Amino acid sequence: MIHLHLIGIGTGNPDHLTRAAIRTINAVDLILLPRKGDAKSDLLDLRHSICGAALASPVRMAEFDMPVRRQDGDYTQAVDDWHDAIAAIWAEQIAVHLPDGGRVALLVWGDPSLYDSTLRIADRLRTAGVDLTVRVEPGITSIQALTAAHAIPLNALAEPVTITTGRRLRREGWPLGVHTIVVMLDSGCAFEVLDPAGITIWWGAYLGMSQEALVHGPLADSAPQIAARRAELRARHGWIMDVYLMRKERADAC
Amino acid sequence: MIHLHLIGIGTGNPDHLTRAAIRTINAVDLILLPRKGDAKSDLLDLRHSICGAALASPVRMAEFDMPVRRQDGDYTQAVDDWHDAIAAIWAEQIAVHLPDGGRVALLVWGDPSLYDSTLRIADRLRTAGVDLTVRVEPGITSIQALTAAHAIPLNALAEPVTITTGRRLRREGWPLGVHTIVVMLDSGCAFEVLDPAGITIWWGAYLGMSQEALVHGPLADSAPQIAARRAELRARHGWIMDVYLMRKERADAC
Ligand SMILES: C[S@@+](CC[C@H](N)C(=O)[O-])C[C@H]1O[C@@H](n2cnc3c(N)ncnc32)[C@H](O)[C@@H]1O
Ligand SMILES: C[S@@+](CC[C@H](N)C(=O)[O-])C[C@H]1O[C@@H](n2cnc3c(N)ncnc32)[C@H](O)[C@@H]1O
Repeated sequence: MIHLHLIGIGTGNPDHLTRAAIRTINAVDLILLPRKGDAKSDLLDLRHSICGAALASPVRMAEFDMPVRRQDGDYTQAVDDWHDAIAAIWAEQIAVHLPDGGRVALLVWGDPSLYDSTLRIADRLRTAGVDLTVRVEPGITSIQALTAAHAIPLNALAEPVTITTGRRLRREGWPLGVHTIVVMLDSGCAFEVLDPAGITIWWGAYLGMSQEALVHGPLADSAPQIAARRAELRARHGWIMDVYLMRKERADAC
Repeated sequence: MIHLHLIGIGTGNPDHLTRAAIRTINAVDLILLPRKGDAKSDLLDLRHSICGAALASPVRMAEFDMPVRRQDGDYTQAVDDWHDAIAAIWAEQIAVHLPDGGRVALLVWGDPSLYDSTLRIADRLRTAGVDLTVRVEPGITSIQALTAAHAIPLNALAEPVTITTGRRLRREGWPLGVHTIVVMLDSGCAFEVLDPAGITIWWGAYLGMSQEALVHGPLADSAPQIAARRAELRARHGWIMDVYLMRKERADAC
């Protein structure tokens, strides 16, 4: 029997670890750590240092290379195959290191519920016949790191909020019926597709890390500023992760 | 000078406290604790026990009675007046207990960004002339407690999510263009206004507490089950807090 613990570790600040996360990291028999390639080796280092900060005594760690997702062909099919490949590696690592079963931790960036596939991959392990329990420890998300850093509320008073992706914002524009949107997984500056009138933006990159960068203001002024800052930071560090919240004076009617 | 720390404490499970929250609670000169009336005295007790779990040595605590919001007349105006009244009480408590300034903590349920007015009230202190810095420590929200308890993702793969209120769901129905919605602040069972076909619900009450209750399934089957469970629990405990996530097979077109 394998007890899989998906542990939200926050988005870079080891002080965002919860007591439950720390307790669970210390209680497992094995920690699986993905290697994601050179540019993001900072992130593997960060996971190691978060583990280091949390562990009272050493726990066995197994690093594995993340398979690469096919970039051509059908997107959904490519993701599907990729998740299968990751599940196969987990199963192999678990079989090697815990032939008699035990407790395994996966450290999930932010919170395991938010734009993360670990839960879906865990389901595949189960359907592949691994005898499995899955437990989740929540973690502070990049959205919370963003609103905390700017000391702003997520929602306007009693109003809804939509969380979306850069890709979708680019394709569909501002979602109808909401004053506030949060944009994640934006590989560029998708806010540039919007008419900036009446929109305010709060942007953050590398939240919780030493490189943390924040910009906020009316979108008209801030958009070019963020674009320049983003390009410069990305060039300097070799990678970037950013997230932003935008609020409109009035929601577009449905 | 007053340094105000808004500290997210999670939604009932003291193990959801982060290290940053614990460190900050232990570093302040004064903790302000609201009393919210009899039915919710459980919650004041919980705040006390969360403090108790977090504090290495005693910190001065000032309990104060929350003013009551006017229930008649204009809603926005009533909220506005209520926030002014709360800000006035904070100012008074701070003046009494910290005449020479210092660090003050407010323990905020869940995360201070999410359907919570503490940040807005803090702004009023500032405009009322209190010399103030405001810092936020993020906390695990009821949404994260819900998805963790059910071990489910928040979003469908690469899809957006809308967070809304029971009141708005009742008034406007399922928001357009999204597969997934999370409903908070629902004083009844607003999901009953929806055509349940193709909708799955994951519901949780008293998340993180000893009374925790979970239901999930197709909305058609679960709606009556939740309504009955909710009424029974509410009668038993005298109060209830619940939150739910619903996913639709296909988003309604915009
Ligand atoms: C695959 S998603 C994972 C999100 C994560 N599970 C969470 O809870 O925040 C990655 C996206 O999260 C956001 N993100 C994650 N960490 C971040 C950080 N430290 N600073 C800014 N954005 C971050 C970015 O939008 C990035 O594209
Ligand atoms: C005023 S809002 C505050 C939300 C809080 N700031 C958070 O981060 O979750 C209160 C609403 O949060 C949800 N909620 C808060 N705590 C909860 C709990 N322990 N279990 C279920 N729902 C909860 C309910 O929807 C409730 O109506």
